[in-house]
Amino acid sequence: MPTGTLLYAQSGGVTAVINATAAAVIQAARARKVPVLAARNGILGALREELIDTAALPASTVRALGQTPGGAFGSCRVKLKSLEQDRARYERLLEVLRAHDVRWFLYNGGNDSADTALKVSQLAAEFGYPLTCVGVPKTVDNDLAVTDCCPGFGSAAKYTAVSVREAALDVAAMAETSTKVFVYEAMGRHAGWLAAAAGLAGNGPDEAPHLILFPERPFDEADFFARVKAVVERVGYCVVVASEGIRTPDGRFVADAGGGQDAFGHTQLGGVASHLAGRVKDALGYKVHWTLPDYLQRSARHLASRTDLEQAQAVGRKAVEYALKGMNAVMPVIVRTSDSPYRWKVEPAPLQAIANHEKTMPAEFIREDGYGITDAARRYLQPLIRGEAPPLYGRDGLPRYARADQAPLPRKLPEWAG
Amino acid sequence: MPTGTLLYAQSGGVTAVINATAAAVIQAARARKVPVLAARNGILGALREELIDTAALPASTVRALGQTPGGAFGSCRVKLKSLEQDRARYERLLEVLRAHDVRWFLYNGGNDSADTALKVSQLAAEFGYPLTCVGVPKTVDNDLAVTDCCPGFGSAAKYTAVSVREAALDVAAMAETSTKVFVYEAMGRHAGWLAAAAGLAGNGPDEAPHLILFPERPFDEADFFARVKAVVERVGYCVVVASEGIRTPDGRFVADAGGGQDAFGHTQLGGVASHLAGRVKDALGYKVHWTLPDYLQRSARHLASRTDLEQAQAVGRKAVEYALKGMNAVMPVIVRTSDSPYRWKVEPAPLQAIANHEKTMPAEFIREDGYGITDAARRYLQPLIRGEAPPLYGRDGLPRYARADQAPLPRKLPEWAG
Repeated sequence: MPTGTLLYAQSGGVTAVINATAAAVIQAARARKVPVLAARNGILGALREELIDTAALPASTVRALGQTPGGAFGSCRVKLKSLEQDRARYERLLEVLRAHDVRWFLYNGGNDSADTALKVSQLAAEFGYPLTCVGVPKTVDNDLAVTDCCPGFGSAAKYTAVSVREAALDVAAMAETSTKVFVYEAMGRHAGWLAAAAGLAGNGPDEAPHLILFPERPFDEADFFARVKAVVERVGYCVVVASEGIRTPDGRFVADAGGGQDAFGHTQLGGVASHLAGRVKDALGYKVHWTLPDYLQRSARHLASRTDLEQAQAVGRKAVEYALKGMNAVMPVIVRTSDSPYRWKVEPAPLQAIANHEKTMPAEFIREDGYGITDAARRYLQPLIRGEAPPLYGRDGLPRYARADQAPLPRKLPEWAG
Repeated sequence: MPTGTLLYAQSGGVTAVINATAAAVIQAARARKVPVLAARNGILGALREELIDTAALPASTVRALGQTPGGAFGSCRVKLKSLEQDRARYERLLEVLRAHDVRWFLYNGGNDSADTALKVSQLAAEFGYPLTCVGVPKTVDNDLAVTDCCPGFGSAAKYTAVSVREAALDVAAMAETSTKVFVYEAMGRHAGWLAAAAGLAGNGPDEAPHLILFPERPFDEADFFARVKAVVERVGYCVVVASEGIRTPDGRFVADAGGGQDAFGHTQLGGVASHLAGRVKDALGYKVHWTLPDYLQRSARHLASRTDLEQAQAVGRKAVEYALKGMNAVMPVIVRTSDSPYRWKVEPAPLQAIANHEKTMPAEFIREDGYGITDAARRYLQPLIRGEAPPLYGRDGLPRYARADQAPLPRKLPEWAG
């Protein structure tokens, strides 16, 4: 058995099942008697030497973490730049890893994190420090390259499809005298994956959602109004799912609320549904309701997809396996071997092929008229929301979620000046 | 066995479990060989003589309806005025009831509907038409008088508490470098019942939700900012639950989006969370996220409270029992006989005591500082969200919800001119 420590860190927006990956990592490493440290707040904790010793977590707590949404050890939105631009931070990172005898570094995140893991592995090689870096996939945005899908997406997709189906039944019941148009705002800056998942809620032109607005297609307001009106007149009501990232034909975000940027340089969005609701009300005179689920859609562990949960656990286990085998600069990815029956397996892919790439939604997933999904999209999306995996609930009617916020280990290095 | 027909209608905003009441009514009536008609779109369907013969629904569909959110037969927001003001409509109603030999009228709604049921019973008596009118309670607002709680509220309360707990875990994970303040907007025009239910998500001042804003307390922005700041500095982040109906000290709604009024004369609200998020960002500089669950909170049958579901079924069964016994102008209400262990029963209450009354939240349910709930509130609310009652899911990963939108019976009367 190799000696040394495994460091696990979470990065970027968290999901309903990223802790299932964390729990699987801890369990797989324990089975091999490898100690696991977890960085508090992702890469920041590694830089600050705020490392949590997971040996202190009883097996029951690890199991409970495995059914808890959010990021148990904290995540962060900090993107390291190139080795040249951010050399001091990469070197500090390596110094911390060395101080804690970290020989395996698992970075659980999206394409930015894959890039960081790749660069850390390059620097370690440069310094002759024996380190195996493995990226672990996670993102509700489903925009990682190579992997067929991303752990976290399936559960958010299930939340979206179920919520739209439920709200549509409400609207259908009220439409005669009240709300005629309902707008649901789905996450998705550049790709309409979650908006597309809403399409699973119904079949045919009369079932909700009646109109889906994708960031992949320019938003034509006049055409949209005409379609809303036609649906209301035909069906009695209209359920619209709008991706937060839809843009006008000249490329501006339809609703650029706040207009700030996050640490990754992404524009902060929000408010598309509110904007569309107001416009529809003014243009067509219908009573409109709208919803912005925001974080609820990515933290709804109570409605997790079993498929997604199993994939989140599998990539955690595989990441440990790859790391201990010394498979450096790889990521365990989901490979789909069959649509029907749905079959998948996990295989290693080079981080180089994933880092900083963004997978867009295939054009053939969007219906020709631009307002719905195709059969190809259904074949792809459908298996990802299959199966239920409810958390255990307490007698108080609330899910039994766990936290792992104990104090970090004592520092071995001077405080980080960064 | 008495002869005649039972007419069931749904009214006002629908809930996750009103169809459970409908299914219980149909099942209880079938067991007594009493035919059940359902009015399409509530009282409008009764006036228009759009009546659905539930005999056409297979037992399996009735069971599926029982686990379907929304209003299976359609609801409406139409309030009948006094007998003097709306005499023509009340007389038309009686004419339709008579044409279909309706001897029992069950009206499933809130306090407006209790009022309508009461007036119909008075008019029937005046005309010497043998009719028994029973109100059946329903509302996520929990504002009906006499009853200890309202079917529909417990499930919305559970949705609220679970969603706030889940989103708070997400915020906790991200707070170090991203979102520091999260605002959840809860339904509740005049009473903060659902906002209060969010309080069940945490215990003690450091657990989310950290601040709850009730419509029962005037909103003092400067004090609110100071508290948000204090929580962020102490805990690292702050989760706020705001009731849609909060008002400034001079009585204006904090966010009166749209400013329209619905058919019941209520101001349409929405956008408190968005408003507060913008204000907090400007005043304190924190990154803020917010959510407006809107209809999702009252249609989330996937997260129904078992207690609530059982009460929704029980009032349906009892309503049939009362009606067939000729107990006129009553409503089956929930009577709590013990907090711990929680025990309840159903008893009849006179519609006169319920019609047009609104139950406000007891002052002792709000903490002295105005930003949280008391132990008394917990004792009241806690049992209502207890127990899970997930719907059956299909192999496609979506709940198996049913519709009952078949064509109405052929008309026996001329078309309604109203």
